[in-house]
Amino acid sequence: MNRLDQLLETPPAQKRVVAVAQAADESILKTVSRATAHNLCSFFLFGEAERIEEIAERAGITFGAEVSIVDIPAEEASSGAVQAVSTGKADVLMKGDVDTATLMKQVLHKEYGLSTGKILSHVALFDFPEYDRILFLTDSAMNISPRLKEKAQIIENAVSVAHRSGVPEPKVAALAAVEKVTSSMEATTDAALLAQMNFRNQIKECVVDGPLAFDNAVNEQAASQKGIESPVAGKADILVAPDIEVANVLYKSFVYFAKARVAGMIAGAKAPIVVTSRSDHPETKLLSLALAVQKEEE
Amino acid sequence: MNRLDQLLETPPAQKRVVAVAQAADESILKTVSRATAHNLCSFFLFGEAERIEEIAERAGITFGAEVSIVDIPAEEASSGAVQAVSTGKADVLMKGDVDTATLMKQVLHKEYGLSTGKILSHVALFDFPEYDRILFLTDSAMNISPRLKEKAQIIENAVSVAHRSGVPEPKVAALAAVEKVTSSMEATTDAALLAQMNFRNQIKECVVDGPLAFDNAVNEQAASQKGIESPVAGKADILVAPDIEVANVLYKSFVYFAKARVAGMIAGAKAPIVVTSRSDHPETKLLSLALAVQKEEE
Repeated sequence: MNRLDQLLETPPAQKRVVAVAQAADESILKTVSRATAHNLCSFFLFGEAERIEEIAERAGITFGAEVSIVDIPAEEASSGAVQAVSTGKADVLMKGDVDTATLMKQVLHKEYGLSTGKILSHVALFDFPEYDRILFLTDSAMNISPRLKEKAQIIENAVSVAHRSGVPEPKVAALAAVEKVTSSMEATTDAALLAQMNFRNQIKECVVDGPLAFDNAVNEQAASQKGIESPVAGKADILVAPDIEVANVLYKSFVYFAKARVAGMIAGAKAPIVVTSRSDHPETKLLSLALAVQKEEE
Repeated sequence: MNRLDQLLETPPAQKRVVAVAQAADESILKTVSRATAHNLCSFFLFGEAERIEEIAERAGITFGAEVSIVDIPAEEASSGAVQAVSTGKADVLMKGDVDTATLMKQVLHKEYGLSTGKILSHVALFDFPEYDRILFLTDSAMNISPRLKEKAQIIENAVSVAHRSGVPEPKVAALAAVEKVTSSMEATTDAALLAQMNFRNQIKECVVDGPLAFDNAVNEQAASQKGIESPVAGKADILVAPDIEVANVLYKSFVYFAKARVAGMIAGAKAPIVVTSRSDHPETKLLSLALAVQKEEE
């Protein structure tokens, strides 16, 4: 069995509830339909009931205990879904047919938003046809040029996602172009500082090492050829990129050139947030939901 | 036939001469041996004759018109090889068992160096098992955080390598994390400026577009789903990364996860420079030489 499929096979016994912000969209409702077919979670669909019902019929959705509509004007769907999560009526927030920026404004709302004070970051999980483990990558979507403190939080967010995916003490590689600390390359100095912060227990429940180049991080032979002694080198679980451009090209090269399957979610808020885009593969949308509804480790 | 192999099959009729800086190294001499077996080029091996002869025997090298030694103390091998190129006795410089920094100091030497005043940059050429064309990537090795003017030169250097590889008017994608010009993301603004510089004929003999995310650059379906109208999107020949970290992770993910074959060289000097590292695949070393000895377009 594919390692990502295990997420689909092991939803929590107590079914979790997903609030979809503006569900009147065929691609979203098809994902809802597939998720209920897998018995993965239940849904509150926020949006105009008439529109949702019309599209749901085409998507093959049956309404009932598993899927229900919260009839609300389209422009209030985001705030409604966010409030359902912040009041505990739902466990996971999912973006529907709404701009990410619009949804995030509600997520960060001072009164009823989902912020914990930490930054939000995107965490992706890849399964490759020819690699012996799943790899987490962060942050390809949310933070453009994170500073050191933000990188530490990005790691913590990714570690929490690794935990919910069954990786108890992930090995974290802070990526750079070279494995030597080089004062003219901030990616290397930040990476070294993150390793030391981990050593001082400022970043917990994981083992961080860096700077590591991509090959040193994922290939043991490459690491040993460079003479790198490290508990992380060659066997990283989580790749932390120095900025959004690095994470973004890696994400896309994994999907387009290395034929990886991928799931992703936004971490760092009071609840997991699923933000898929129209161009994502249907399987990615389903796997992302499966990742988000996993019960967090106590 | 593999598309990179074509470089091996088509060396220039007039055989070019490669000057190797400090050739007393088994891995270097094995590459020399393989190159002469392919009738690819001829060599001047700079270094201590006794040491080179000893290792050459193990590498199966026959000395003669194709391969000759220039007996010189090890610490003068770099300057000797560089001067052979600058005086026209050799056409290509190749790094042997010497630090890249040491060799580059000689390459940039004010009196006898190979500088043209333009910056030097690394250009890699990839052939993927399942992609319909070769891809050039720059700059994964030389320039850490190039500014706009340097990026323009990096493109020009890559275009010259594309020309020598038989791609007459390459399509150049300036990479970023998103395809929209976004003032808070310098990768996107530089990319847009490079496109406009190309439009104003400040960057010639190629078509530049950007910003493009990796998927928009290489996959036509991804580009059209985003509604991107562009002569480059989905069919880029050259990927220009915003910085060394982006190019470096892409390079290594291509090699380690997408099973790409790769050749590379440093462009921008008076002559091509081949800098392979000990950990490179033997085939990469040979293909890099084959790339460097191609005759430049007139």
